[in-house]
Amino acid sequence: MSAIDQLTREFSRLPGIGPRTALRLVYHLLKRPPDEARRLAGALRDVADRVRPCTRCGNFSEGELCEVCTDAGRDPSTLCVVEEAYEVGAIERTGSYRGLYHVLGGRLSPLDGVGPEELNVAPLLARLEEGTVRELIVATSASVEGEATAVYLEETARPHGVRITRLARGIPVGSDLEYVDGSTIAEALAGRREM
Amino acid sequence: MSAIDQLTREFSRLPGIGPRTALRLVYHLLKRPPDEARRLAGALRDVADRVRPCTRCGNFSEGELCEVCTDAGRDPSTLCVVEEAYEVGAIERTGSYRGLYHVLGGRLSPLDGVGPEELNVAPLLARLEEGTVRELIVATSASVEGEATAVYLEETARPHGVRITRLARGIPVGSDLEYVDGSTIAEALAGRREM
Repeated sequence: MSAIDQLTREFSRLPGIGPRTALRLVYHLLKRPPDEARRLAGALRDVADRVRPCTRCGNFSEGELCEVCTDAGRDPSTLCVVEEAYEVGAIERTGSYRGLYHVLGGRLSPLDGVGPEELNVAPLLARLEEGTVRELIVATSASVEGEATAVYLEETARPHGVRITRLARGIPVGSDLEYVDGSTIAEALAGRREM
Repeated sequence: MSAIDQLTREFSRLPGIGPRTALRLVYHLLKRPPDEARRLAGALRDVADRVRPCTRCGNFSEGELCEVCTDAGRDPSTLCVVEEAYEVGAIERTGSYRGLYHVLGGRLSPLDGVGPEELNVAPLLARLEEGTVRELIVATSASVEGEATAVYLEETARPHGVRITRLARGIPVGSDLEYVDGSTIAEALAGRREM
C-alpha cells in the first residue's frame, strides 16, 4: 500500500472522519511543506510515548504525578470523582474548580462485568482515609450506570465522614461530560447539592 | 505546552478541524492503545519523507517516477494536463482514463505573479517534442484562471500538431437542474449531443 493510501486509511480510523475527509486531509498535507506533517507526527508520538495515568489520581500526566496533583495552589480538601481521565480536562477548562480529582476509570456496569474491583475505588477510599478530604464531589455521568456508580460511591464513602455532593442537575441527561459546554459544567459545579 | 495541548493545536491546523474537534480526536486517541497514535504518526512521517513529485509528470510518487508513468499498460499517446497533483487521484479513481498525466503545478494568475515560467510548461512542451503524444487533454479547472491557462496551453501546444481536447462542460451527474448555475446550463446546452 502506498504511503498516501496508508495515511488516508489511518486518518479515516478517527471518529467523524470518513474516507473523503481523510483524503482531503492527506492532500492538504501534501500541499504544505513536509515539516507540517512531521510536526503532527511528532505531537502524536509525544502523546503516545509520554502521556500516562497520574499515579495518585489517574488523570493524564506526563510525569509520576499530574499537573493538578503537583499544583500547591489546589485545595486538597475537595476531591472530585470522575469516570474517565478526559473528563478532568472538561472541568479544568471551566476554570471554576480548584480542588483535586480522582479518576475511577469507568462506571459500574454489572452486565459488562465492571464491579467496584474493576474501578479505582480502593485508592479513592485510601485517599479519604488520609483525612485531608472534607468534601467528595461525585461527578459521574448522568446515565443510569453513572447514577448507580454515584449511589455506590456515596454509600461507600459515607463512613469516612466527609461531605458528599454531586453535580447539580443541569447536565443534559445522556450526555458525556466531554461534550458539555463549559458554562453548563460551571453551573453544575456551583449548584452541587448534598446527597 | 503539554503533549496533549500540542497535539490538539496540530490537529486544529488541519482544514475543517476546529479546536473542539481537535480535542475530541486527541481524547479518542488517548482512549485507544498508544500504538494507534503511533501508527498514524508513522503514516504521516512516511508521507512527509517518501512522497515527492514524479520527475516526469509531477504526480505524487514514492520513487523517481510515479505509478502511472512506470505502468507499461498505460497509453503514452494520450496526455492529460491537470493543475495540481491531487487532481490525478480524482481522475484515476474513475477508472476511465488509461493515458498519462502532466501536472502544471498551478494555473496562470498574473495578479499573483504566476506566469508560464512558474508552471511546468516547458517540460510539457519537451514531452510533446518527443513525438509520442497524439492527444492532449486539457483538464484545468473551470475557473476564469483555469480557462485562461487552457487557452494559453492550446496556443502553445498547437504548433506540435497534436489533437487538443478539453473536459466536457455540462450538468454534473445526479444534479437537479434547478440547483445548477446558469452558465453551466448554457454550456450544457451549447454542448448538447445526439441521443
